[in-house]
Amino acid sequence: MIDRYYLEEMKKIWSEDNYYLKWKEIEAAVLKARGKKKLAEKLMSVPVTQEEVREKEKVSGHELNAFLEILEENIDGCAGEIHKGLTSSDVMDTARILQMKETVHIIEKALKRVISILEERVIQYRDLVMCGRTHGQFAEPVTLGLKLARFLETGKRSLGRLKRMKKSILVGQINGAVGTYSLVSPEEEEAILKNLGLKPLAISSQVIPRDIFADYLYAMALISSFSEEVAVEIRLLAQDGIKEVTEPFSKRQKGSSAMPHKKNPVICERICGLSRLVRSHVNVGMSNIALWNERDISHSSNERIILEEASSLTYYILKKLEFVLDGMNVHKKNINNNLRALGVTIFSSGILKLLLDKGMGREQAYAITKKLFIDLPSKSRVKKALKSIAGIPAGEVEKVMNFDYYLRNRNKIFKRLGL
Amino acid sequence: MIDRYYLEEMKKIWSEDNYYLKWKEIEAAVLKARGKKKLAEKLMSVPVTQEEVREKEKVSGHELNAFLEILEENIDGCAGEIHKGLTSSDVMDTARILQMKETVHIIEKALKRVISILEERVIQYRDLVMCGRTHGQFAEPVTLGLKLARFLETGKRSLGRLKRMKKSILVGQINGAVGTYSLVSPEEEEAILKNLGLKPLAISSQVIPRDIFADYLYAMALISSFSEEVAVEIRLLAQDGIKEVTEPFSKRQKGSSAMPHKKNPVICERICGLSRLVRSHVNVGMSNIALWNERDISHSSNERIILEEASSLTYYILKKLEFVLDGMNVHKKNINNNLRALGVTIFSSGILKLLLDKGMGREQAYAITKKLFIDLPSKSRVKKALKSIAGIPAGEVEKVMNFDYYLRNRNKIFKRLGL
Amino acid sequence: MIDRYYLEEMKKIWSEDNYYLKWKEIEAAVLKARGKKKLAEKLMSVPVTQEEVREKEKVSGHELNAFLEILEENIDGCAGEIHKGLTSSDVMDTARILQMKETVHIIEKALKRVISILEERVIQYRDLVMCGRTHGQFAEPVTLGLKLARFLETGKRSLGRLKRMKKSILVGQINGAVGTYSLVSPEEEEAILKNLGLKPLAISSQVIPRDIFADYLYAMALISSFSEEVAVEIRLLAQDGIKEVTEPFSKRQKGSSAMPHKKNPVICERICGLSRLVRSHVNVGMSNIALWNERDISHSSNERIILEEASSLTYYILKKLEFVLDGMNVHKKNINNNLRALGVTIFSSGILKLLLDKGMGREQAYAITKKLFIDLPSKSRVKKALKSIAGIPAGEVEKVMNFDYYLRNRNKIFKRLGL
Amino acid sequence: MIDRYYLEEMKKIWSEDNYYLKWKEIEAAVLKARGKKKLAEKLMSVPVTQEEVREKEKVSGHELNAFLEILEENIDGCAGEIHKGLTSSDVMDTARILQMKETVHIIEKALKRVISILEERVIQYRDLVMCGRTHGQFAEPVTLGLKLARFLETGKRSLGRLKRMKKSILVGQINGAVGTYSLVSPEEEEAILKNLGLKPLAISSQVIPRDIFADYLYAMALISSFSEEVAVEIRLLAQDGIKEVTEPFSKRQKGSSAMPHKKNPVICERICGLSRLVRSHVNVGMSNIALWNERDISHSSNERIILEEASSLTYYILKKLEFVLDGMNVHKKNINNNLRALGVTIFSSGILKLLLDKGMGREQAYAITKKLFIDLPSKSRVKKALKSIAGIPAGEVEKVMNFDYYLRNRNKIFKRLGL
Repeated sequence: MIDRYYLEEMKKIWSEDNYYLKWKEIEAAVLKARGKKKLAEKLMSVPVTQEEVREKEKVSGHELNAFLEILEENIDGCAGEIHKGLTSSDVMDTARILQMKETVHIIEKALKRVISILEERVIQYRDLVMCGRTHGQFAEPVTLGLKLARFLETGKRSLGRLKRMKKSILVGQINGAVGTYSLVSPEEEEAILKNLGLKPLAISSQVIPRDIFADYLYAMALISSFSEEVAVEIRLLAQDGIKEVTEPFSKRQKGSSAMPHKKNPVICERICGLSRLVRSHVNVGMSNIALWNERDISHSSNERIILEEASSLTYYILKKLEFVLDGMNVHKKNINNNLRALGVTIFSSGILKLLLDKGMGREQAYAITKKLFIDLPSKSRVKKALKSIAGIPAGEVEKVMNFDYYLRNRNKIFKRLGL
Repeated sequence: MIDRYYLEEMKKIWSEDNYYLKWKEIEAAVLKARGKKKLAEKLMSVPVTQEEVREKEKVSGHELNAFLEILEENIDGCAGEIHKGLTSSDVMDTARILQMKETVHIIEKALKRVISILEERVIQYRDLVMCGRTHGQFAEPVTLGLKLARFLETGKRSLGRLKRMKKSILVGQINGAVGTYSLVSPEEEEAILKNLGLKPLAISSQVIPRDIFADYLYAMALISSFSEEVAVEIRLLAQDGIKEVTEPFSKRQKGSSAMPHKKNPVICERICGLSRLVRSHVNVGMSNIALWNERDISHSSNERIILEEASSLTYYILKKLEFVLDGMNVHKKNINNNLRALGVTIFSSGILKLLLDKGMGREQAYAITKKLFIDLPSKSRVKKALKSIAGIPAGEVEKVMNFDYYLRNRNKIFKRLGL
Repeated sequence: MIDRYYLEEMKKIWSEDNYYLKWKEIEAAVLKARGKKKLAEKLMSVPVTQEEVREKEKVSGHELNAFLEILEENIDGCAGEIHKGLTSSDVMDTARILQMKETVHIIEKALKRVISILEERVIQYRDLVMCGRTHGQFAEPVTLGLKLARFLETGKRSLGRLKRMKKSILVGQINGAVGTYSLVSPEEEEAILKNLGLKPLAISSQVIPRDIFADYLYAMALISSFSEEVAVEIRLLAQDGIKEVTEPFSKRQKGSSAMPHKKNPVICERICGLSRLVRSHVNVGMSNIALWNERDISHSSNERIILEEASSLTYYILKKLEFVLDGMNVHKKNINNNLRALGVTIFSSGILKLLLDKGMGREQAYAITKKLFIDLPSKSRVKKALKSIAGIPAGEVEKVMNFDYYLRNRNKIFKRLGL
Repeated sequence: MIDRYYLEEMKKIWSEDNYYLKWKEIEAAVLKARGKKKLAEKLMSVPVTQEEVREKEKVSGHELNAFLEILEENIDGCAGEIHKGLTSSDVMDTARILQMKETVHIIEKALKRVISILEERVIQYRDLVMCGRTHGQFAEPVTLGLKLARFLETGKRSLGRLKRMKKSILVGQINGAVGTYSLVSPEEEEAILKNLGLKPLAISSQVIPRDIFADYLYAMALISSFSEEVAVEIRLLAQDGIKEVTEPFSKRQKGSSAMPHKKNPVICERICGLSRLVRSHVNVGMSNIALWNERDISHSSNERIILEEASSLTYYILKKLEFVLDGMNVHKKNINNNLRALGVTIFSSGILKLLLDKGMGREQAYAITKKLFIDLPSKSRVKKALKSIAGIPAGEVEKVMNFDYYLRNRNKIFKRLGL
């Protein structure tokens, strides 16, 4: 992973050093389950560095054997005890799971923080009326709180996915070369994994089934896609000509090397770009599922990259989203100006309903409303027209031509959301 | 969808006719919730065909308005009542959900059928010893039952995903142009959706959030990937030179137009090819999530294709997998021959463990075992070697050189699986 | 392919009937190359329908054998001559190529038409000054002609890709079961393919290599992506608050069932949505490349869908793009208003350069310009400021504060484009 | 990029240090084109490190402005001259192109090396007869040379794509904030780019069009897919039960930590896994094409990752493929055993043709051949059968029942390939 989008928490989890630490923890858990507590402690105290492993791997071409050699060199006489009855994947796959578990813990916190800020913003702007837009065109009015509340819910659904995934990946395996417990026993496995906070799979091959890893990548991709959804909205609202909401822009920040006046929504654009990449990893993950027989190792090479990338990018995206939501600027004046520019057009649906309520056929009512509103009419012209066409009194027309009418149900929505 | 992979059940669900039927059901549910039961019945009795809708759509460029025109033309004087306060997506999106709900019902049944056949096969072959293979190379022995039991579990995890998704998509929306209930009320929505067996979303924009549709596509893709995993295994086992398991091949079937002797695993290959396509739809679905503002309609065009395709192909894949598993041929003679061809090589891990148990260092034990087994030794040569090198009596060596020893824990696995 | 996006020209090419027609043409070309002209003619006159093939395929499970049976039933005594020495893929793959060839011919025409309209529009609007925008923010001025000229060039690059691909796919194979000419000769192959307007591959397996098909899908995806680029631009420019360019909207068209005032850029949105799907087919195509040994048939099932879909959707996209560009509305008044709203901000880069020209350090010049322009200053205030800060006469400032200055090189660009 | 798959040549090109070196080269080329040769030299001598840029970027949030600050701090009084009239992307995008150009140079060499080894192997094994396999089933015989010659041709097509792409990416841009040459001139651009070995695009926006980057990614993906095709073949041929060709396995290499006898095709499996990832980058690249207006920066974040990854992984894949092909083991004994195991089955297509030649109807001939060959008959039984059924003399039957007959045209193929 390039340094730029790799925050400390993720660097720590996905470093090779942490990977080898997990290996040690697993091998130690094995020893402990076999009553070799002292040896386990000794093992934990052996320093295993990436450089050393890489050096030995050059000879054997086998990463885990290199690791075992280092242990053996450092612990006199007891090397035969270590890794006994295990196969490499018992250690490597279970270690990956432990890294994923640590990641999910951090990501969950970050997502919850985003959700909590979103909730604050929803409450803050629950009544700030603004243009609703569909197809980039003015539609009916919404409030900024309502708009953000949609994202709040998507965020919560993403959290739900994360939590379900968290449960489903809390599995490990210590079951030998082809998963038959040929040289370890299911009981031993249970004891070992318990020490690691994991449960055994009912059955596996030499490796943990890859659909479980696909679930992990999918949950990350959906968090990224949720973040992109928010980022796209802010990019749209930040456009010159609209400028209703903008992402934070610090005093000393520079927008463009050529055009000093620029304040560009670069963080939101970055979220969008990275999200495309996280999403594409799902397909790679799914294409790793159909391994050959009791396993081939084709998944491993790309997983070394995509697990780390999906994890660290999703975390980076969330921290950036948090920053954007935390410091986002709401330009009330522009919001009001844009609403005013719209005139009464925004009320066409209410007028249509009024005509329908009066018993007019849909085709006719639609045609009349369309004709009336295509030219940005004044309120009074609309009233006059409805009077003359359908005999509707001005008071009734007035009633459907104000924002409150359109938004009168908003508190029921907020109530549904528990806000 | 091309006819070839489009089974009747899916054709029925995903036909335009059924889509319009859902529209009618939704509009009728609206009327019923408003106490217009008779009008609702009248509405349901209006025939709406694809041809008619398409004809009117040519003029207005709007599918749902075309549909409403047809209703209005057929129901005197009450057209103003229909669709009042709704926006097109209230009907169209909720209708898609109903189609998805119907699909999930059928897919679930098909997946359960596959699972049930797998279970039968697992029980049937639980003790049939065969070569385990990793990297395409002989590893330790497994049983065919164990191999299939892995798929059984993956199938069950796929079923779990499907069931969770089923719950999460049972949502609809009847909330107007931008989701604010400007012209309907949340209470009305609840009543309407209840009639349809759905629940309201806490909040939505003009459309149902697209992450929900991504979940649908992902669940389908994982079922397809599970099926591909089984199919790849059978393709591998069916190879000449291995020929342990083959897919059914009917008497009158032709394998090749040029080579009459051929019996090709074409169904399994087809499952693999279609699975690639279903998987790729997930990315399309995820890229539909970040719509603009309260909605743009970019998702709609590709969803018309991918929802139907993912559904019908997944169903086709499952029915083909069922056929393959139901009629699969197990060639016990070849299985035995392949095991025999392997000689004692398959026991290298047991010998390694034996040496380790005797306190030999890992490096040395590994080197000895590797050297010994690289030349396909005889059993007696292995015994002799272990005696002379490590003083291990022949009896102990004999103990780890038979299949039963390696597979002694298999019943514990089956017990975990409830079998 | 669903009917909605399936235009007549593509339906004709990708129908099963045309596929079987190609089969007949290939089998006839074989006969002709072997001097059996009469038999070839007889063969061409046998009607082969999809229904009949499907019926027979049910028995043999082999599409091409079903086809051969129909021929044999219809041509007395000479059936032994047909398909002699060929394998199914010789016919099926070469037929696909012929369909692709026909498609490319039509797509090329459609793309050229789009390019030609774009060229017209470029000339028409070469001098219409409008806001340039980066990151959705006002940048320096451009002209609409320049903006469209970028698309013109992207379109031409897409055409270049199409033409190169067209050449590379003009290949066929008639070389038997594993590509060794075991029962036909290379000379025969050359003669047969010449009749079909194709060249032999230097070598192939049972099938034409799938990287060639990936090239086809990629060329389609890039045409779709080009179209999406134009469509996104129009969607952005059509937004309320900007409204500079809009897609055509017919008088009787309906934008929304609820809001009669709406004119939505639904065609451009549709282009975007379909483009996502065409793009995703490239990955499927690439995953078909690594077939097993001399072939497996996993590619075939998804190709039956994606080749047809990529072809017909790309064509549909191009025809819609043609329609949009042909009838696009340019709102000059809004363009001018938006330019005016911008005030002098648009000139910040010129002012920065002026200060740099005067020898001021970049950091200082940048800071001054940024401070000056952040508040939407008046022209006179800018002049005054530059006078007092850097002693720059108002005349020099004036020179860089008008659109012509920024756009003085545009004719050199048009000249490069040959316009 | 993780260190493991990142070879020195690529590390050098894709390091931030080299990126900033390119920036300096471009800024220097600008100065030179403006006659400021001395300043250009001074500029080139300023050391710009990643750490320093990152430090300053923390303040301004703008990478290129940070770079310019460093230059200004190190070159007294002339900073105003640097970057004058340019926008950041002029430098950043052109720099990426220069990195891509350097990469293509290295990749081309590596691909040519693979092609050259393949050519050697083709010549070496041109006459080594082995089983052809379709669908994993014995088909007609091929030679190992023929099999490899297919890959040779795919490799050459990949090289052709690379070369075409190489030409198309040799473009840069120095045209200011929105591509209008507002503060530089097209003539200056030409002079600057000439210094860098690039040509100007006829037109661009603030950035180089992203379809050009998609072409780069696609060319890499097709090289990876080609490599995967070869790797899959070797994995298949290396399987126990087949074991005809294996990848090199060094004496001290370890196949499995548990099973010392294992020799696994891990390099080929690794090629397959990495290829899946490189392929998936194409879709990300294509989704970067439709940027907003004159540019948004969403592409940049993912490109920082995927350009480097696609480049370095493709190079790694090629070097591994070179290693595998260079040292690949051909097991002639197994090849012969497998051919023998096949008996006369392999000749079914010849027998079918013989019957057809005698005028027998296809259906009948097919049925007879199928029946005859389904049971692995002896040669003499086949002869007897053909005599009794169709009166064909044993000599004629003998003629089509040997490998030479099937492979008699192979030299014509090799001739086509220029071998």
